[in-house]
Amino acid sequence: MSGNNLAEGSNPSEAQMSGAEVIAQSLKTQDVNYMFGIVGIPVTEIALATQKLGIRYVGMRNEQAACYAASAVGYLTGRPGVCLVVSGPGLIHALGGMANANMNCWYMECCLPPPICMAETSAVYVAASLLRNAKQPLLIIGKGAAYAHAEHSIRKLVEQCKLPFLPTPMGKGVIPDNHPNCVGAARSRALQLADVIVLFGARLNWILHFGLPPRYQPDVKFIQVDICAEELGNNVRPAVALLGDINAVTQQLLEQFDKIPWQYPPESKWWKILREKMKSNEAASKELASQKSLPMNYYTVFYHVQEQLPRDCFVVSEGANTMDIGRTVLQNCLPRHRLDAGTFGTMGVGLGFAIAAAVVAKDRNPGQRVICVEGDSAFGFSGMEVETICRYNLPIVLLVVNNNGIYQGLDIDTWKDMLKSGDATTVAPPVCLLPHSHYEHVMTAFGGKGYFVQTPEELQKSLRQSLADMTKPSLINIMIEPQAMRKAQDFHWLTRSKI
Amino acid sequence: MSGNNLAEGSNPSEAQMSGAEVIAQSLKTQDVNYMFGIVGIPVTEIALATQKLGIRYVGMRNEQAACYAASAVGYLTGRPGVCLVVSGPGLIHALGGMANANMNCWYMECCLPPPICMAETSAVYVAASLLRNAKQPLLIIGKGAAYAHAEHSIRKLVEQCKLPFLPTPMGKGVIPDNHPNCVGAARSRALQLADVIVLFGARLNWILHFGLPPRYQPDVKFIQVDICAEELGNNVRPAVALLGDINAVTQQLLEQFDKIPWQYPPESKWWKILREKMKSNEAASKELASQKSLPMNYYTVFYHVQEQLPRDCFVVSEGANTMDIGRTVLQNCLPRHRLDAGTFGTMGVGLGFAIAAAVVAKDRNPGQRVICVEGDSAFGFSGMEVETICRYNLPIVLLVVNNNGIYQGLDIDTWKDMLKSGDATTVAPPVCLLPHSHYEHVMTAFGGKGYFVQTPEELQKSLRQSLADMTKPSLINIMIEPQAMRKAQDFHWLTRSKI
Amino acid sequence: MSGNNLAEGSNPSEAQMSGAEVIAQSLKTQDVNYMFGIVGIPVTEIALATQKLGIRYVGMRNEQAACYAASAVGYLTGRPGVCLVVSGPGLIHALGGMANANMNCWYMECCLPPPICMAETSAVYVAASLLRNAKQPLLIIGKGAAYAHAEHSIRKLVEQCKLPFLPTPMGKGVIPDNHPNCVGAARSRALQLADVIVLFGARLNWILHFGLPPRYQPDVKFIQVDICAEELGNNVRPAVALLGDINAVTQQLLEQFDKIPWQYPPESKWWKILREKMKSNEAASKELASQKSLPMNYYTVFYHVQEQLPRDCFVVSEGANTMDIGRTVLQNCLPRHRLDAGTFGTMGVGLGFAIAAAVVAKDRNPGQRVICVEGDSAFGFSGMEVETICRYNLPIVLLVVNNNGIYQGLDIDTWKDMLKSGDATTVAPPVCLLPHSHYEHVMTAFGGKGYFVQTPEELQKSLRQSLADMTKPSLINIMIEPQAMRKAQDFHWLTRSKI
Amino acid sequence: MSGNNLAEGSNPSEAQMSGAEVIAQSLKTQDVNYMFGIVGIPVTEIALATQKLGIRYVGMRNEQAACYAASAVGYLTGRPGVCLVVSGPGLIHALGGMANANMNCWYMECCLPPPICMAETSAVYVAASLLRNAKQPLLIIGKGAAYAHAEHSIRKLVEQCKLPFLPTPMGKGVIPDNHPNCVGAARSRALQLADVIVLFGARLNWILHFGLPPRYQPDVKFIQVDICAEELGNNVRPAVALLGDINAVTQQLLEQFDKIPWQYPPESKWWKILREKMKSNEAASKELASQKSLPMNYYTVFYHVQEQLPRDCFVVSEGANTMDIGRTVLQNCLPRHRLDAGTFGTMGVGLGFAIAAAVVAKDRNPGQRVICVEGDSAFGFSGMEVETICRYNLPIVLLVVNNNGIYQGLDIDTWKDMLKSGDATTVAPPVCLLPHSHYEHVMTAFGGKGYFVQTPEELQKSLRQSLADMTKPSLINIMIEPQAMRKAQDFHWLTRSKI
Repeated sequence: MSGNNLAEGSNPSEAQMSGAEVIAQSLKTQDVNYMFGIVGIPVTEIALATQKLGIRYVGMRNEQAACYAASAVGYLTGRPGVCLVVSGPGLIHALGGMANANMNCWYMECCLPPPICMAETSAVYVAASLLRNAKQPLLIIGKGAAYAHAEHSIRKLVEQCKLPFLPTPMGKGVIPDNHPNCVGAARSRALQLADVIVLFGARLNWILHFGLPPRYQPDVKFIQVDICAEELGNNVRPAVALLGDINAVTQQLLEQFDKIPWQYPPESKWWKILREKMKSNEAASKELASQKSLPMNYYTVFYHVQEQLPRDCFVVSEGANTMDIGRTVLQNCLPRHRLDAGTFGTMGVGLGFAIAAAVVAKDRNPGQRVICVEGDSAFGFSGMEVETICRYNLPIVLLVVNNNGIYQGLDIDTWKDMLKSGDATTVAPPVCLLPHSHYEHVMTAFGGKGYFVQTPEELQKSLRQSLADMTKPSLINIMIEPQAMRKAQDFHWLTRSKI
Repeated sequence: MSGNNLAEGSNPSEAQMSGAEVIAQSLKTQDVNYMFGIVGIPVTEIALATQKLGIRYVGMRNEQAACYAASAVGYLTGRPGVCLVVSGPGLIHALGGMANANMNCWYMECCLPPPICMAETSAVYVAASLLRNAKQPLLIIGKGAAYAHAEHSIRKLVEQCKLPFLPTPMGKGVIPDNHPNCVGAARSRALQLADVIVLFGARLNWILHFGLPPRYQPDVKFIQVDICAEELGNNVRPAVALLGDINAVTQQLLEQFDKIPWQYPPESKWWKILREKMKSNEAASKELASQKSLPMNYYTVFYHVQEQLPRDCFVVSEGANTMDIGRTVLQNCLPRHRLDAGTFGTMGVGLGFAIAAAVVAKDRNPGQRVICVEGDSAFGFSGMEVETICRYNLPIVLLVVNNNGIYQGLDIDTWKDMLKSGDATTVAPPVCLLPHSHYEHVMTAFGGKGYFVQTPEELQKSLRQSLADMTKPSLINIMIEPQAMRKAQDFHWLTRSKI
Repeated sequence: MSGNNLAEGSNPSEAQMSGAEVIAQSLKTQDVNYMFGIVGIPVTEIALATQKLGIRYVGMRNEQAACYAASAVGYLTGRPGVCLVVSGPGLIHALGGMANANMNCWYMECCLPPPICMAETSAVYVAASLLRNAKQPLLIIGKGAAYAHAEHSIRKLVEQCKLPFLPTPMGKGVIPDNHPNCVGAARSRALQLADVIVLFGARLNWILHFGLPPRYQPDVKFIQVDICAEELGNNVRPAVALLGDINAVTQQLLEQFDKIPWQYPPESKWWKILREKMKSNEAASKELASQKSLPMNYYTVFYHVQEQLPRDCFVVSEGANTMDIGRTVLQNCLPRHRLDAGTFGTMGVGLGFAIAAAVVAKDRNPGQRVICVEGDSAFGFSGMEVETICRYNLPIVLLVVNNNGIYQGLDIDTWKDMLKSGDATTVAPPVCLLPHSHYEHVMTAFGGKGYFVQTPEELQKSLRQSLADMTKPSLINIMIEPQAMRKAQDFHWLTRSKI
Repeated sequence: MSGNNLAEGSNPSEAQMSGAEVIAQSLKTQDVNYMFGIVGIPVTEIALATQKLGIRYVGMRNEQAACYAASAVGYLTGRPGVCLVVSGPGLIHALGGMANANMNCWYMECCLPPPICMAETSAVYVAASLLRNAKQPLLIIGKGAAYAHAEHSIRKLVEQCKLPFLPTPMGKGVIPDNHPNCVGAARSRALQLADVIVLFGARLNWILHFGLPPRYQPDVKFIQVDICAEELGNNVRPAVALLGDINAVTQQLLEQFDKIPWQYPPESKWWKILREKMKSNEAASKELASQKSLPMNYYTVFYHVQEQLPRDCFVVSEGANTMDIGRTVLQNCLPRHRLDAGTFGTMGVGLGFAIAAAVVAKDRNPGQRVICVEGDSAFGFSGMEVETICRYNLPIVLLVVNNNGIYQGLDIDTWKDMLKSGDATTVAPPVCLLPHSHYEHVMTAFGGKGYFVQTPEELQKSLRQSLADMTKPSLINIMIEPQAMRKAQDFHWLTRSKI
């Protein structure tokens, strides 16, 4: 079949529709705009029929990544993405994506946008009173707030009441990270000392340490705002639970503060504690970032990336330290512009998510970039999707933060020494990957641009070139200290025990 | 953690064993020799404890491939391979491997080799009589025969009784493909005209066309030899079913032909039909193989590969035409030395299988090679495992038979023309991959050797170099005609309809 | 073990708690008041520990019925009932109850009552407008309204706005069936002609004919009020969906009608149509009920039952015609006082439900009765639970409406004649049960009172005695015409085709 | 529908078959002779179509019992029984039966009888040698031997080699229990002291104490004969495993003892130990059986039942002590004539099994009886199936051994006293059922004969009448001591701890 043949095809006005056409039409009716998948007998016809109706088809290299991409489209656009796989093994490969979607945000068959519901008026009143009486209040903004498009109302609440806020990983950008009320740089302190915390679509899961001491005050009061009744009261019993659409409920709260105006005193001791902690933490990060020793450490890398990060880009990230530290340094300015491994901690989602974001970006806002920050181990799960990126010429800059391993690795000399004592299956630590892997070749193999960088200067230059050239995707393979640790923390439970 | 630290570790003589050590010890007790996986909290300790007990650990890049590798080890060694994954997403990624193992051959928990059982004497007598009276007999040797180590007894039966035989894909090598009684080159004709067929551990599944007309005589009599009662009588009711260990049952058959000697007349019309058909088919293949036009076609490629194929190598293969046509040209001389996508038709198994075979080969028979023949689409499912291959320096030669697509693709000029009419998501046929992809870069990225070949001469040379140099794995990216079709078939139902 | 021993037991103040005590304490903490089950090793201790904490334990005869009883308690009391079974077969027997609970209303682990949420104000406004402009409005009250305790607000809406309403089977009693605005007697007509229908916690499932023509106007507008977003838009796309607590949303609607008062004109043509249809249907039923021929028909039976039905009793029912026709004649005056086979159409739930209702009634309101109306086939699923009823001396009057079969049966003479032609396994129609079965003996076997009734007079007398005597449960076995059909319907699709 | 109508029906010769007819025809082709179920829309037609083809249809009262009946037919006849249920709740109710069949013996879709397979000759030789050299040999005959129809070969082995044997519960009757070599009366001693044990289709599950000390010698050698490879080596690693058809393998063993004749010396110390233990155990049982105190104990009851037990009857049993003690006293003389709760310990199987056995008996051997021995609690699970028994007039004598509870209960006076202290839900021990329940009324309700017996004389008389009258089924409700314990055991671990 040639591209020309594609343009012809059967005339839909004549005769009846094929099964593939019926499926395609039904997807179109449900306002599906993107399909990801891998064709094979007998689903190729469905992909063709779908394209004919104007739905974009993205052919992927593994059903796993296809399903991750489809699930991300649901989150980004509010309309379902679709994953096309053959039955049997194809379907089983796709299960990872389905499980991840389930743990995060997305479902197929969600034909109608659900109607909006609001919290009970009296509960809203109680919540507002709690907040008025808080000594050390804190708002936590989760991805539920992003999904509910609650950015305007929550920002109004933050600014009108002068409250400190903290985003969860995928809640970043609902209010810009550089907003003066964002206390992300004092995250642990803020959680530990707050006496009243409002959760906007954020779950008290492992990322938020389950809401329990010693990471929180034993008597902290949670006000939980969520659309999902099952999430309310998980792990910790909230003082007030506001069940409803997060945007609508925030507006109900704002009405309370309109009726009886209130703002939290900006000169309080609480703000002083938070600002001082932020200052010292930022100084410590900057200190780490400015270290001149080579190989680079995480902070140096992310400092330089942040310097050049386009304000409106999507940030996609996965990995262990790469994702954790990157999150603290890289700033999001727009809602629903960060995608990461999420609640389920799934490795292998990054490239699928980046592809989805890039396809959406290309459609909506030509010129917008996707910055995909991968640990080297994380990149391995779906690195072959780089071919997909090149095939569709997607505006993605891939950063592989490469420490030669999972959590940590070995430098090339230690690796070679080690092999003298036996076969790698016998002597290599299970966390190690091959030192000095040239992941950038995976990009050049398909016509994209690749960079192998070992110094801050090389990093700066490669970023500049990658971001300047919109004609090709690129991959920057950034070599860091294989045993690089995160900066010391002043809470003992923050530092992971060495493996 | 460094390799040195590994050598020290905790002293097992002191104090009690950790949970990880208990698991490792239990695997050792069950005679597990290989573990494949991806570490993460909290399973890293298990990998370490396992290595300490002398079990080889192979760290993979995606749980999918790890699980495929573990399943292959079970088939190759008769002892279970183990797959180590973290719970949640890791486990879900591994499901594909588990499903595939289930459809083929391998189970965990198989502590004891099961005792051998034999067929009922009277049924063996009936089977022998049927065979004696056959006008056009045929033996089909399946992977069950390989798994049962029945190679010696079946070969004796073939030679003593002078019977024609046909291997199934993974039954290839139980008797060498170049044995004079092998009628693989007349496969369709042999199936279509045989009047008595003995199935040795072969299933009448889609690969054998379910045993039904018009691919078979309506009154063909099947003699089914299998260890698995559930397989007996699937799709077609056998004339005789011999339930038992395939090797033991074959010996029972041989006893019958020892008591009353018999051999099938070598000058029969049946042998004449088969030999003539083989001759004409081989001539047709040779004709295709000798075509000088470029890009090459499948037959030319496989002809040159076969020329240099080491007699004792493992052959691993997956893809559509790549696997189908490759199977007819590439010869196996040893049992249990071919692994392919098998009954379940799973794409993505190739590199995991190749890694498993190479790890086993390195252990048992240094110098032995694994030739892994991948379609370009198939390679994409787990191409990142090339890093694993390089990390463990495995004796693998990867051939990517590259037609720029699934089933077929576009040449680079047509591709570029096509893009003038719209975005690739809109205009590219769903079967297309990026033309001129340099998959060999995925190998050079990790220090292996890569070749991009477009002519028979380049193919010959790259094969020679790859096979000569045992110090590094290599990948040969073989460009073929993107619209290359298989040779014409004289049964209409053999030719797949165009997509 | 004797009852005395029970009073002693281990002293909970001394030493630590056993596993059984921990489980019991945890159930108590979750405000569980009732446990149903069957003991066995090793769960007997749990039942004992539970009783010690004041939770009532009801030992049942089959796990199926135990689980049905536990699920009903959840609906009746708003607190979970618990089902105690041994693992293995006991658990499997309980699956029916779990599936049924899932399809209806009940879940374990529902620790906290969920917070109340309200519908979006603008959607409420739209709904109110729709209703104001309706020509032929109808409210349908489902079991969701009962579960939400919305009886006062919905009744206020009905009476203030003078709207006709229709209860679903388990929605009966939210407003008394004998309320003048109830149009149950003109159900088919009301559904068929309404132009705006408000669904209060009612699903458009098979009981409501999926909301589709010809049972409804093609352009009928549905206003759906539900707590469950997943239920919204099933089968039919609602004109407005009000997501929220049904009671809270009804109050929101009332606020609209307080702001701008409105009532539907009582002298409208719509009310005239409905009242005339009700009158003619009631006349037809009364005609059937007054037939003097013997055996009795369904209408005669239910007419006499209704005559004596205590106003505050629970009505439990299952069967085919018995449940369907009984529902139209037997009136409920209180919310949450009717339990039947429900959405899932499960046979076998009746006695479990009746036992649960009776245990709750005994606790809350001594003197209250449970009337359990069973078809003879339905009674067979769990008839042995009569022993449970007698053991706990529960205030249940069981009516078995006996037509010797499923849907229909044979009279005793035809049965005997038929047996002359062969064994019953060969000649008896599969729908037949044994004619003249004395189900009342199943009650007298355990000390309860049994009645075998064949005439209206016997029925009246037995009902009078059963309801007068609170000291013992009773069972009235009511013989009806084995081929009794329901009254003719004037919609052709209402009449089931003969088997 | 009347019986007459049934005889007419549609003419199968005209026109095409309905869906129901296709299903029925397919069951007939697979040699299905019995269907059990409950009809409803839309499966009634299937039952009718099935009857037309001569398959017997038995309408049951609960899908649970229907499925148990269908599974028993598979065991009794070697051809599958079929269970007909409606989808949804009917299917869920049937799960118990499916799980139980799975744990025991029966599968649907078993179209072809599997071919027979034999054990490896060398393994048979080793097994025979082990047996020749045994000091204290023992054969254990399981239900696998019964299912394999191995009665003749195993009996020949027992008698020719003069070996002691022990049946498992459902292995009883493969060789008659009263055979002089049966050491059932010294079961615990035989297991404890044997040095070589041959297992014929018996599993080392909880019934056989998992094959472990202290119930067995630590160095006992097991020879395992089984058709199922998965069963081999469970719990204990056998010295020899003979995989194959149990009858065929036993014949292979006999061939060994034909070649080199051998018999175990009848005057050995081992036989002496066993005979003495049997004598003392039988004396203890007889002592218990002859006790004159009332209420009766278990041994008295079973002694009198055994006195009148027809030699060729089926014995079905379930319960706790009722099944355990009954098994030791009631003797089976024919293979496949005992059905009980089996490996899975399922309560509720009894009446379904009895109905299946009776339907088969009526077909094969008019005059043959089914004696169904139920504990009172066990009877409650499916007591309503008594109506089924009466409807089909099945030759069943039901014995309910009634101790007013599960394991034990209270006498009527203690029960009444106890109720003075509170409601039964609060004060009744969870193991108690209603004292003096007249279960026999459940039989008289449907026209069968019922007996309430409290003395040995009443028991004898009622048994005599029940067995003499073939025209009606009967139920004998046998009151025993509510706190009746089993006889003291001289192994401490045999006596269950009091609840």
